[in-house]
Amino acid sequence: MWPRRVPSSIVWPPALPNRWMMGPLGTRHGLEWLLGLYFLSHIPITLLVDLQAVLPRDLYPVKLRNLQQWYTEFKDPLLQNAPVWFKSFLFCELVFQLPFFPVATYAFFKGGCRWICTPAIIYSVQTMTTLIPILSTFLLEDFSKASVFRGQGPKTFHERLFLVSVYMPYFLTPLILLLFMLQNPYYKSEEKKMRKNNPGSRGEVTTGQFPVGPSTRKMLRAHVFSSI
Amino acid sequence: MWPRRVPSSIVWPPALPNRWMMGPLGTRHGLEWLLGLYFLSHIPITLLVDLQAVLPRDLYPVKLRNLQQWYTEFKDPLLQNAPVWFKSFLFCELVFQLPFFPVATYAFFKGGCRWICTPAIIYSVQTMTTLIPILSTFLLEDFSKASVFRGQGPKTFHERLFLVSVYMPYFLTPLILLLFMLQNPYYKSEEKKMRKNNPGSRGEVTTGQFPVGPSTRKMLRAHVFSSI
Repeated sequence: MWPRRVPSSIVWPPALPNRWMMGPLGTRHGLEWLLGLYFLSHIPITLLVDLQAVLPRDLYPVKLRNLQQWYTEFKDPLLQNAPVWFKSFLFCELVFQLPFFPVATYAFFKGGCRWICTPAIIYSVQTMTTLIPILSTFLLEDFSKASVFRGQGPKTFHERLFLVSVYMPYFLTPLILLLFMLQNPYYKSEEKKMRKNNPGSRGEVTTGQFPVGPSTRKMLRAHVFSSI
Repeated sequence: MWPRRVPSSIVWPPALPNRWMMGPLGTRHGLEWLLGLYFLSHIPITLLVDLQAVLPRDLYPVKLRNLQQWYTEFKDPLLQNAPVWFKSFLFCELVFQLPFFPVATYAFFKGGCRWICTPAIIYSVQTMTTLIPILSTFLLEDFSKASVFRGQGPKTFHERLFLVSVYMPYFLTPLILLLFMLQNPYYKSEEKKMRKNNPGSRGEVTTGQFPVGPSTRKMLRAHVFSSI
C-alpha cells in the first residue's frame, strides 16, 4: 500500500533528533530531576532532624527525638552539643534555606526554569561555605580538649571519616549544582555573546543618546567659542 | 558673529545627557570605585594580618607580629586562639579569596566589566556566610567557659559590640556588592527579557530542528501505520 498524500508543509521523513544535542539535553533533564529530589528530601531532613538543635525540644514528638538520639550514637559532636558557630548555620538553614527548598524542588522538577540560576548559585555557595568548617572540625578538632563538646565526638580516624561521609553529600551536591548552573549551556548566561557583539560598550550610551567622541567634542567646543 | 557651518552629521545642539540615566550611571561608577578600593585594601589586610593565624610565624617580621599583637589587645579571641572552624575560613581566604582580590580590584577600577558579576556574587555570598558564625560568636559565645579561647575574649557587652563593629564592614560591603550585582540594570542579567521574548521555550528546539507539536505527531503516526 502506497503512503497517502502528506501535506507539503510536513517534512518527510521527520528529521531525526540531533544526537549530539539530545545527549546533553537528556543529561540536563536527568540532573534537574536529581536536584529536585535532593531539595525535596532536604525539607523533612531540615525540619525533623537538623532544626532539633535550635528549636524547643517540646515541638518534636518523642519518636523524632529518639531518631536524633539514635543518630547521635554515631558520635556527631555538632548535633549532640551544638556550638554557637554551628547553631548560627542552623539558624540560616531555617530562615534562608528552608523557604528556598520548595521553590527549588518546583523549579528543578518542572525543568528549564532559568530564573532559578542565581538563587541556586547563592544557595550552593552558602551551603558549601558552611560545610568547610564542619568537615574541618570532624577531621582536625581535638575533641578530648574542646570543652564545648564535653568529651563527646569521634575517637578514631575511622569514626571521623564516617562523619565526613555523612555530611559530604551536602557539599558535593551544591558543588554539582554550582557547576551545572555555570557550565550548562542552557543555564549559562548569554552575557559573553552580548559582550562579544558590543566589545566597546560600557553601558554609557543608551537609547536616544548621541555618542560623542573626543574629536567631535573638540570640534563642538571650537564652534561654541567662535560663536560667542 | 554667526556660527560657522557645522557638518549635517552633527546634531546641533548636542542632546543633553539624560539626567535620569546620568544619576544611576554616576552612582554605578562611584560604587565601582569604592568596591575597587575595598578589594585593593583587602590584599594587605589578608596577607599581613589575617593569615598570621594560619601561616608560620617566621614568615612575618617582628613589626608585623607586633601589629597583630597590638590588635589582639582589643580582645579578639578568634585571632588570638583561632579555633579549627575559624582557621578553615582563613585557609579559604588564602586559597580562593586572595587570588580573586587583584582581579576584582582591576575589574571595579576599570569599571563596566560584566564578567565580574558571577565571581562577585560567589565572593559576596561566601564572605557573608563566613561572617555569620564570626559575629554570632562575638555576640553569644560564653568565653569564660569555652576552653578553646583560654578565657580570653570580650568581657563586657561593649567589648563584644566593638569586635562586631570591626568585622561588620566585611559583612556589609559584600552585601552591598551582592545587591549591586543583582539590582543594577547594567550588571543584571538579560535573561528576563530573553524569557519574555521566548515564553514557551524550554531549550528543546535548537537551530535546524523541526518543532513537531502533538497534532502533527498524531498525523505522522497515522501515516506511518497506514503505510506499513
